[in-house]
Amino acid sequence: MTTPTPEQTATILVSCPDRRGLVAALAQLLYGHGINILDADQHTDSLANKFFQRIRMDLREMHADRISLERAIAEVAERFEMRFRISYGSHRKRVAVLVSKYDHCLHDLVLRQRAGELACDLPIIVSNHADLEPVARSYGITFHHFPVTAQTKQEQEQRMFELFERERIDLVVLARYMQIVSAEFCERYAERAVNIHHSFLPAFVGGKPYHPAHQRGVKVVGATAHYVTHNLDQGPIIEQDVMRVSHRDSVDDLVRKGRDLERMVLSRAVRHHLEDRVLVADNKTVVF
Amino acid sequence: MTTPTPEQTATILVSCPDRRGLVAALAQLLYGHGINILDADQHTDSLANKFFQRIRMDLREMHADRISLERAIAEVAERFEMRFRISYGSHRKRVAVLVSKYDHCLHDLVLRQRAGELACDLPIIVSNHADLEPVARSYGITFHHFPVTAQTKQEQEQRMFELFERERIDLVVLARYMQIVSAEFCERYAERAVNIHHSFLPAFVGGKPYHPAHQRGVKVVGATAHYVTHNLDQGPIIEQDVMRVSHRDSVDDLVRKGRDLERMVLSRAVRHHLEDRVLVADNKTVVF
Amino acid sequence: MTTPTPEQTATILVSCPDRRGLVAALAQLLYGHGINILDADQHTDSLANKFFQRIRMDLREMHADRISLERAIAEVAERFEMRFRISYGSHRKRVAVLVSKYDHCLHDLVLRQRAGELACDLPIIVSNHADLEPVARSYGITFHHFPVTAQTKQEQEQRMFELFERERIDLVVLARYMQIVSAEFCERYAERAVNIHHSFLPAFVGGKPYHPAHQRGVKVVGATAHYVTHNLDQGPIIEQDVMRVSHRDSVDDLVRKGRDLERMVLSRAVRHHLEDRVLVADNKTVVF
Amino acid sequence: MTTPTPEQTATILVSCPDRRGLVAALAQLLYGHGINILDADQHTDSLANKFFQRIRMDLREMHADRISLERAIAEVAERFEMRFRISYGSHRKRVAVLVSKYDHCLHDLVLRQRAGELACDLPIIVSNHADLEPVARSYGITFHHFPVTAQTKQEQEQRMFELFERERIDLVVLARYMQIVSAEFCERYAERAVNIHHSFLPAFVGGKPYHPAHQRGVKVVGATAHYVTHNLDQGPIIEQDVMRVSHRDSVDDLVRKGRDLERMVLSRAVRHHLEDRVLVADNKTVVF
Repeated sequence: MTTPTPEQTATILVSCPDRRGLVAALAQLLYGHGINILDADQHTDSLANKFFQRIRMDLREMHADRISLERAIAEVAERFEMRFRISYGSHRKRVAVLVSKYDHCLHDLVLRQRAGELACDLPIIVSNHADLEPVARSYGITFHHFPVTAQTKQEQEQRMFELFERERIDLVVLARYMQIVSAEFCERYAERAVNIHHSFLPAFVGGKPYHPAHQRGVKVVGATAHYVTHNLDQGPIIEQDVMRVSHRDSVDDLVRKGRDLERMVLSRAVRHHLEDRVLVADNKTVVF
Repeated sequence: MTTPTPEQTATILVSCPDRRGLVAALAQLLYGHGINILDADQHTDSLANKFFQRIRMDLREMHADRISLERAIAEVAERFEMRFRISYGSHRKRVAVLVSKYDHCLHDLVLRQRAGELACDLPIIVSNHADLEPVARSYGITFHHFPVTAQTKQEQEQRMFELFERERIDLVVLARYMQIVSAEFCERYAERAVNIHHSFLPAFVGGKPYHPAHQRGVKVVGATAHYVTHNLDQGPIIEQDVMRVSHRDSVDDLVRKGRDLERMVLSRAVRHHLEDRVLVADNKTVVF
Repeated sequence: MTTPTPEQTATILVSCPDRRGLVAALAQLLYGHGINILDADQHTDSLANKFFQRIRMDLREMHADRISLERAIAEVAERFEMRFRISYGSHRKRVAVLVSKYDHCLHDLVLRQRAGELACDLPIIVSNHADLEPVARSYGITFHHFPVTAQTKQEQEQRMFELFERERIDLVVLARYMQIVSAEFCERYAERAVNIHHSFLPAFVGGKPYHPAHQRGVKVVGATAHYVTHNLDQGPIIEQDVMRVSHRDSVDDLVRKGRDLERMVLSRAVRHHLEDRVLVADNKTVVF
Repeated sequence: MTTPTPEQTATILVSCPDRRGLVAALAQLLYGHGINILDADQHTDSLANKFFQRIRMDLREMHADRISLERAIAEVAERFEMRFRISYGSHRKRVAVLVSKYDHCLHDLVLRQRAGELACDLPIIVSNHADLEPVARSYGITFHHFPVTAQTKQEQEQRMFELFERERIDLVVLARYMQIVSAEFCERYAERAVNIHHSFLPAFVGGKPYHPAHQRGVKVVGATAHYVTHNLDQGPIIEQDVMRVSHRDSVDDLVRKGRDLERMVLSRAVRHHLEDRVLVADNKTVVF
């Protein structure tokens, strides 16, 4: 068999109560539709009695159309109380990047997207400050400036939502966006908005983590990418990583080393999301 | 569903040419025998067109006996040109540890086995030197001394094979055993003998890797656990890890730091093997 | 020049306000006494305006006796408001290991000491439970059982202090000792008692960190070795390290992986202390 | 004391046979010139009987001019057979980046330089291909195209040397420059030309390391930054780092993961060089 192109594949993410026979039922269904399984990962959380699965499928010899396939899956899903989400490789996800003044994560995301590491479109960069407009322009990406004050916050968010609708945004990436987003934002983009926090959560929540980390004298600093929820810095963690530091590192050194961490951790989390590898349950993630 | 005890489970490892329908066929077969799938991992090597799978099964409600199950699997296997290996949790693997004079890996393996980290029995320790007999005795494990010279090597190996047969050894662990084993040894214990090499292979093959590593001025040293094959230091790699070093580290420091690596890497590889996570193809491993 | 044996060396640790000329003054003084500097590390904390230095010295051609040397250093120290501590390689530090029921750190410390990795004597193991007496006996180390209740705690600690005095203990290692020690203990053994905490502090303080770490869904777990202070889990951090975990890891897996971290982190911290590499200032450490 | 600006500092790197009194002699000399020592690192290679030192100095209250200072140091140097190199913070090093077609290291170096992480000027980008001219232009850096054939190689290198002279280049960075440079190049820029090799040297020398790494089935891949010497891939290693890989990673995945390694390792090595932290002896580096 030759390898299909990404456009010829689809990915299904499944979660349900753990029940006998469901692996066989789904495998049988796909086989019956002429679909070959390229990759399958599954995980059983025996404490929560929950089952999770990710299947990447080759659609080249599928006998049915998408509607019939999805209807058939929906029937199995009902039988097993299964939630599922299906992504077609032929649809490139559309990503909005939100920034404030720091540009390191922005550069990293754009350069990776251009290098083919992130399978998505990046049509818009959104910011509450005008500082990074030249960066957006240098990459030929449309820049939207939504300055925010306590008074205008709600209104500006509404304009943002309209923009996201208009641009058919699938994923919002908060790449060091220094604004707390509203409960409505969190709900609209539940499990579709990724934030980078510049500490190893749950240590050092809040806006300036490198200072208390330096003061506490930790020997390791970290960064955390998580889905945005209405509880600040408490969303489901997608990815974390750390770096050694020592007494020789000043706060400025931590900030500098942290930039590398933030870049790496955020881009990995975005990649996981774009490849439909992440499932959320009980405020935790399964990352296949 | 409650969680089964290890004794109530079995693990099947499968490799075959990649063909449509085989995931469904196997899932259906297990379901038909009343077996619940606890965990399943699969991997497709699209270059080699090979499919690999590991399934951990709950046997508590199996309708059939083992012989019928295995016969049914064998039928599917024939249809898909599948190689398979099935391990029952009710059989604890029996491990022989081979050592020479260094004791750090030996202590580590025994202490982990006693802490329940390695699901196996450790009935015998075998050595070409008498030095570690007191260590074996302190743990209450039978020590077998097979001194080896160029003349006696073949004969001593034969005695070793007899011992392994008598003790029904499933896995041989070369825990810094400083003797090259014969082609017959490699064949008899193919994919059932794990060696620890004290470098990041393929760098620094041979018996004294820390000296050339120090001389080359590397900034990272490593250790490699691999299955034993007749090509020295060339067997399929199961696990590797590394540690940073600097100009401050003498050869003795590398040796000391290396001990930690050797311990960790060997015990992880042994654990992977004992849990039936390792498949070999084309002198490489798939570690599920 | 040949390399001196450890017995022919001494180490001096210095901290003081940062002042010009002090490096030259100390270097000159040592040179004037016939002492060769083997290694020197220094660090200036420019925020706190503090200077730290560690000098390892070759005493083989020292013209003076220790008393004269120390008197000369004391004079320089007074001039520069310097605190200093001098350790002679000829005095092997004496270590008491405190344990409760977990044995993994204990085995690790003893085996490393026997392998020559920790330059110390290990005359006593102390516990509030009797469980690990057989382990102590297997190594031929005297075991002292001090069962503790709310009523007897103070009295038992006094007996412990007497024991430590009698045994001339230089360093107390809390190797998963599950008892909170008193303020008097912290004061008596200030900067001479090392504890291992089984999380990446300051995340997950308290007695059972792996459960909340699992519940929070972190992707990395850690361990922290710190000097014991009267603020629980708040003492100056000597060493930390981390390990990746995933959704596949149960709490039991975290506990198992954590054991490796605890062993490594505690033994490194103990080694740093024994080699006189650690200075404390403002509840942080400088580890040379 | 306040912290000096970088322009008010200088760094001296010293290597010589290990002799008593030299630390004191140098410290005394600097003190006598009104120079405060900000940081000092030293290392004794007792096998080679060599001494290395890096001293970062505050020049704000220096009584003498640079010529007198350097003359005084030269006198001490002669007495102790010392080689030394002094760098003044007031001189920003000038860096030429050599590339071919891959742009990831180039972007990384430029962005770090602009973020203030690399204290240098980046006046020119040089390439044997025209592909990255637009990248150079987008950053406003002059691009020089020197196409190379077997016939023109020598001539083109001469033109390059002239360009480097004209631009007063202090450091040449080969950021995935896919051309073997001549012996003359290596000599002219000895210890002033840094190359990134995309494997964990000495494993997988040569031009396409990810393929044999994939074929060998390694579980870790690496990257190595080293000074360029006439022995290809054999120069003194400045920095290395590694990343875990598994059977799931194709050659393309290794290439992608490798890009992150190459970026990080090269930029760290360049930073070490720019901060005058690297000394070479016996084809190895001391990195303070």
